[in-house]
Amino acid sequence: MSTTGTSRRVAVLGTGSWGTAFSMILADAGNDVTMWGRRAEVTDEIRRQHTNGQYLPGLTLSRRITATQDVAEALDGAQVVVLAVPSQSLRANLERWRPHLPGDALHVSLMKGIELGTGRRMSEVICEVGDVDPERVSVVTGPNLAREIVRRDPAASVVASASKDTAEAVAHACATPYFRPYTETDVVGCELGGATKNVVALAVGMAEGLGMGDNSKASIITRGLAETTRLGVRLGAKPLTFSGLAGVGDLIATCMSPLSRNHSFGVKLGQGMTVDEVVAETRQVAEGVKSAESILALAGSVGVDMPIVEQVAAVVHDGRDPSEVVTQLMSRARKEERR
Amino acid sequence: MSTTGTSRRVAVLGTGSWGTAFSMILADAGNDVTMWGRRAEVTDEIRRQHTNGQYLPGLTLSRRITATQDVAEALDGAQVVVLAVPSQSLRANLERWRPHLPGDALHVSLMKGIELGTGRRMSEVICEVGDVDPERVSVVTGPNLAREIVRRDPAASVVASASKDTAEAVAHACATPYFRPYTETDVVGCELGGATKNVVALAVGMAEGLGMGDNSKASIITRGLAETTRLGVRLGAKPLTFSGLAGVGDLIATCMSPLSRNHSFGVKLGQGMTVDEVVAETRQVAEGVKSAESILALAGSVGVDMPIVEQVAAVVHDGRDPSEVVTQLMSRARKEERR
Repeated sequence: MSTTGTSRRVAVLGTGSWGTAFSMILADAGNDVTMWGRRAEVTDEIRRQHTNGQYLPGLTLSRRITATQDVAEALDGAQVVVLAVPSQSLRANLERWRPHLPGDALHVSLMKGIELGTGRRMSEVICEVGDVDPERVSVVTGPNLAREIVRRDPAASVVASASKDTAEAVAHACATPYFRPYTETDVVGCELGGATKNVVALAVGMAEGLGMGDNSKASIITRGLAETTRLGVRLGAKPLTFSGLAGVGDLIATCMSPLSRNHSFGVKLGQGMTVDEVVAETRQVAEGVKSAESILALAGSVGVDMPIVEQVAAVVHDGRDPSEVVTQLMSRARKEERR
Repeated sequence: MSTTGTSRRVAVLGTGSWGTAFSMILADAGNDVTMWGRRAEVTDEIRRQHTNGQYLPGLTLSRRITATQDVAEALDGAQVVVLAVPSQSLRANLERWRPHLPGDALHVSLMKGIELGTGRRMSEVICEVGDVDPERVSVVTGPNLAREIVRRDPAASVVASASKDTAEAVAHACATPYFRPYTETDVVGCELGGATKNVVALAVGMAEGLGMGDNSKASIITRGLAETTRLGVRLGAKPLTFSGLAGVGDLIATCMSPLSRNHSFGVKLGQGMTVDEVVAETRQVAEGVKSAESILALAGSVGVDMPIVEQVAAVVHDGRDPSEVVTQLMSRARKEERR
């Protein structure tokens, strides 16, 4: 793999699918990567066998990637710090990590969620808890299913930061012949697009699990894009962001692909499983399940109506029947479209 | 099936998949439908056996639907005239039909294409050749895959007309519990969205045939939406139309579904078949193959750059290799997104 960036020391905090796939990209781009993980069996496997079988079976990682359970070791000398932990655990993690965060590093969020209780976006939590200047924070988002990235299939991505220089530096650090990042300054739009697409993917999955076809699924995606755009614009995002890769691009990939965890989780709900049963089977909670509630609260706090997020929350938190909810979404479609 | 509209006499001119599925909708909505077709074996089968096995195998049509080869008989007393012939044959057909068109009927276009040579939209050809007042013409479009509609799966649709009254009357005539039309006045946006989605679906199909995944496909759809919006806005369409069911909704359904003919046609091209080989196998030319050239000419005439349509035209008309073309599209993505 040819290298296209200048070599940097990068810490990737988190060893899930996207953290691992992004580490692969960073190594392919010529960087030296130290991953941090909570569980010894995962970090040992990455360090010794160069694999992460639980999250990305079949992938062999570059020798440029190592892993540790010691966050101080991972962060020591890091020029770029990539945060890739579950959204709702970010605050608690950062509180522990804060003494070790290098003061001059660039911070990158791979996380797609809104914090429960505060309604904060992930980059806001990084700035607040990590005491990081917003000019040194960026988010990476776009139609980037991890399991396709590790096949090195071509993918376009978005690096957003309030600082154009930071966005350019991060884009440069992760550009490879197969992974093409472009830069953007609309951090709000990119983070909201990333968070709500997981919830919309749950709704689309439920429709699929109930036996509905592509006409219905396309209608739900379209309405999901509309309500995401409404929320984003209300919170200061640029409407055009939602028509781009970080908006509709990511939404389509997540909602249509069988490789998307949120989509698959929704399918199982539509087929009649409960949230607990799906979690027991898949051994993880899809991000959208956790985000539905926090996005709904955020939307409520600024007076934006989000019928799809509301219906998904009713299923995953209040145990409502997906078939009622999806039927209601489809019958709202006509009214909703009248802008 | 309960009826939700007042009974009308409707002529449906064309016996392809969408003409037949829309006849089913119209009959379910309580109308009496006479279909016109060119070939006796098709009209005889519809009239006698209430099926159209070539286009929609497995469907049994209502007794409210009959069919004839005699256009004068089909049009006699029709209050609504639905046009559902191949786009490039509309002008020649209308020249023959014109003496029989009822002067006071509402006209509905189900066609998705741009006329070669003139760059006209289908509703423009109807007005010009059929001598019909634009206020009496509407177009029906949206995420409406015919093979899902005939399962009576829920679908939302768009009826667009320069006259709100005409749009409402047509929406009323085709509303059923499973088919939900809403009205719109942006005829230009709806027709352009409908025409270009077939070309984008060819590009997405090619990428799929070449082994690319959902990240790449979502990127191409996103870029396709952007170039369609550019053309539409240049020609007077409302930008929001492209974020709705007639824009991104129809685009997603057509580009992602294996039931879409344009998508499937593209897959075969991506797998290495020539246009002639695919036509020989499928016994029809996908609309996008014919539209690529006419849309490109229309875009050129108003100075709009449409890289996806251009690349698809290069494959289907100039025999360029799909793999070169798709690689080029993916590597353009970064540059293109910078608006």
